[in-house]
Amino acid sequence: MKRYAIGVDIGGTNTVVGMVDAQGECVATLGFKTREFEYIDDYVGTICDNIEKLVGSVADCELVGIGIGAPNMVYHTGCIEKPANLFWKDRQTGDRMEIIPMAEMIRHRFPDTLVRGTNDANTAAIGEMCFGGARGMKDFVVITLGTGLGSGFVANGELIYGHDGGAGELGHVIVERDGRMCTCGNRGCLEKYASATGIRNTVLEMLADPSKDSSLREIPVEQLDSRAIYDAAVKGDAVAMEAFEITGHWLGFGLAMAVAVTSPEAIFLFGGLAAAGNLILEPTKRYMEHYLLRNYRDKVKILPSGVDGGNAAILGAAALIWQDK
Amino acid sequence: MKRYAIGVDIGGTNTVVGMVDAQGECVATLGFKTREFEYIDDYVGTICDNIEKLVGSVADCELVGIGIGAPNMVYHTGCIEKPANLFWKDRQTGDRMEIIPMAEMIRHRFPDTLVRGTNDANTAAIGEMCFGGARGMKDFVVITLGTGLGSGFVANGELIYGHDGGAGELGHVIVERDGRMCTCGNRGCLEKYASATGIRNTVLEMLADPSKDSSLREIPVEQLDSRAIYDAAVKGDAVAMEAFEITGHWLGFGLAMAVAVTSPEAIFLFGGLAAAGNLILEPTKRYMEHYLLRNYRDKVKILPSGVDGGNAAILGAAALIWQDK
Repeated sequence: MKRYAIGVDIGGTNTVVGMVDAQGECVATLGFKTREFEYIDDYVGTICDNIEKLVGSVADCELVGIGIGAPNMVYHTGCIEKPANLFWKDRQTGDRMEIIPMAEMIRHRFPDTLVRGTNDANTAAIGEMCFGGARGMKDFVVITLGTGLGSGFVANGELIYGHDGGAGELGHVIVERDGRMCTCGNRGCLEKYASATGIRNTVLEMLADPSKDSSLREIPVEQLDSRAIYDAAVKGDAVAMEAFEITGHWLGFGLAMAVAVTSPEAIFLFGGLAAAGNLILEPTKRYMEHYLLRNYRDKVKILPSGVDGGNAAILGAAALIWQDK
Repeated sequence: MKRYAIGVDIGGTNTVVGMVDAQGECVATLGFKTREFEYIDDYVGTICDNIEKLVGSVADCELVGIGIGAPNMVYHTGCIEKPANLFWKDRQTGDRMEIIPMAEMIRHRFPDTLVRGTNDANTAAIGEMCFGGARGMKDFVVITLGTGLGSGFVANGELIYGHDGGAGELGHVIVERDGRMCTCGNRGCLEKYASATGIRNTVLEMLADPSKDSSLREIPVEQLDSRAIYDAAVKGDAVAMEAFEITGHWLGFGLAMAVAVTSPEAIFLFGGLAAAGNLILEPTKRYMEHYLLRNYRDKVKILPSGVDGGNAAILGAAALIWQDK
C-alpha cells in the first residue's frame, strides 16, 4: 500500500486537486475552473469525482485524508465563511451561499476519511513546516503576498488558529490611521500597502505626479500589475524601484509588529510579489530591523518560501493531513 | 505530604518569596528590599534562605518547584538579560552584571528541584490560566499596565515564548511613527501611551494648554501619577477623564493588532492602571472594536485580571511550576 493525502486548492478562478505523498511529492493533479459551477453541490461533486479519479489511478493507494485550502475557510468549523470571490448557490433556495460547509460536504462522499481545511495563508504555513524551509522550526511566520496579504503564525510548533479559527490577519492590522480605504471597511490596513494590489496603488499615486518620469506610463492602467512593476524595476525604472522601497518599508513595519508578538525564528514570504526576490526582501528586512525592539534585531530571518512554487497550494493543503501522520 | 510550589517575585524595589499550593492559595510570604544587596550572590543567597525558611515552616512539606518572575527574565535560558532597574555586581570582577543566570544560581542551592523563570507579563498570563479568569481558556492575552506595558500571549493552551524566549513585547509595537521617544530607542511605542507613565505624559501634554482647567494643576508634578489622575477622573475632572479616553484609544488600537495576530477569546488587563476599572476598560473596548477587522467584532472579551491582586505576582511565578503538575 502506498499512502497519499489529497490537497484541494480552491481559488476564485481555478480549483486544483492533487495527490501528495508523505515526502511532499505531488504525483498527480487535476484542475478545473471554479466559476463553471452555479450550484455548490455540482462544484463539490466535481471535486469529489476528481479525488476518486486520482485515487483510482494508483494501484494499492491508501487515502490518508483530504486537506483543503480556501479563502475564508475556518479550521474549527470546516466552513468557508462569507468569501468575497466565491459565488455558489444553494440548489434548494437558489440563494447565494454565505456559509459553505465544505469539509462536511466532502466528508459526505468520503465518510471514513479525515477531512480538514483552513485558509490559504494557514495552509502555506503548514506546507512550509512539513515540506519547505520551516522544517524543524517551532516558531515562524508565513506571509502570502498576493491580491491581499495573508499570514499564518506557528508558535510552539503549532499553527495559531485562535479562539474562533480566525487568527493570522496581519493584513488587516492598521499601519496608517486614515490611510487607504480597505475592502474590510477600515482604513490604512497593511494589505492596502504591502501586496500586489498595494504596490500597484503606490505606483499609481506616484504617477499622479507629472514630474516623475517612468516607463510605466506607457502601460495601460489595467495591465499595470506587480509583474510589470517588477520588470520595470529590474530595468532600472526609478518609479518602480522606489515603489519596491516603499512597499518594503510598509511590510517591514508590519513585520516588526508580528515579531513583537511571537518572536519567530524566520518569516517566509510567499506568493507573486515575493517572487521579486531581493527587490522586496532587502528593503523589507532593512525597515523591519529599523522598527524592531533592540532585543530582536539581527535575529529574525526573512526568507523566500521553500515550497515548490507550482504546487505550493496543493502541498500546503495536503500538509494539513500529513502534519501529524 | 502537602505539596507546595515557591513563587519568587523579583521587582526593582521589592523581592517577595511565597509558598503556593496547587489550588492557588498563597499560604505564606517573606519579603525584602531588592536594593539592599550589592552583590548577586548575597541577593540570591537571601532568596534561597527565605525559600528554606518557608519550606521548613510547614510540617511534611514537599517542594514541587521554584518559579521566578523578573523583568527581562528569559524562559529558555533562565537568565535575567540586561535589566534596566536591577543592579547587582559580580563578586569576582566587581562589574555590574548584564546577564544574570538566576535559575542556575537558585538550582545550585536546590539541585533536585525544578526551577523555571520568565518575565512578569508571562507569569501574569500563566497565573491567569492556572488560578484566574482564564481557567479553561486556550487562547487569551494578558496585558500588564504598570510603568510600562507588558504582554503574555497564550495560544493552543501554551504560552508563546517565541524562538528566543522574547515573545510578547506588545508594549514596543509602534503605534505612532515619530511619536514619543521610548527608552528602547524607537519612537511611538504603545507603552509610551498606554501605561501608568503614558497616561501621566498625556495629562502633562494636556496641561501644557493653559486654557484647560483641571484640579490636577494643584498637584506637584512629581506626585502626579496614574492614581492621582484616577482620583480626579472619578470626581469629574475633565482633563483626567479625557486622559483615560485617550489612553483607552491607544490601548484599544494596540489590542486590535494583537487580536489580528492570535484571535484570543479574552484579553485580561492587569496591574495599577487596570485598577481604574471601567474608566479604562470601556474606552479600550470601544476603540478596539472600532479598529478590529469585522470578523473579530463583538467576540473578544476585555476583562480585569481574575487573580488575587495582593499576591498576583507570586501566584503567577508559582503557576510556572503548577501549570503542568
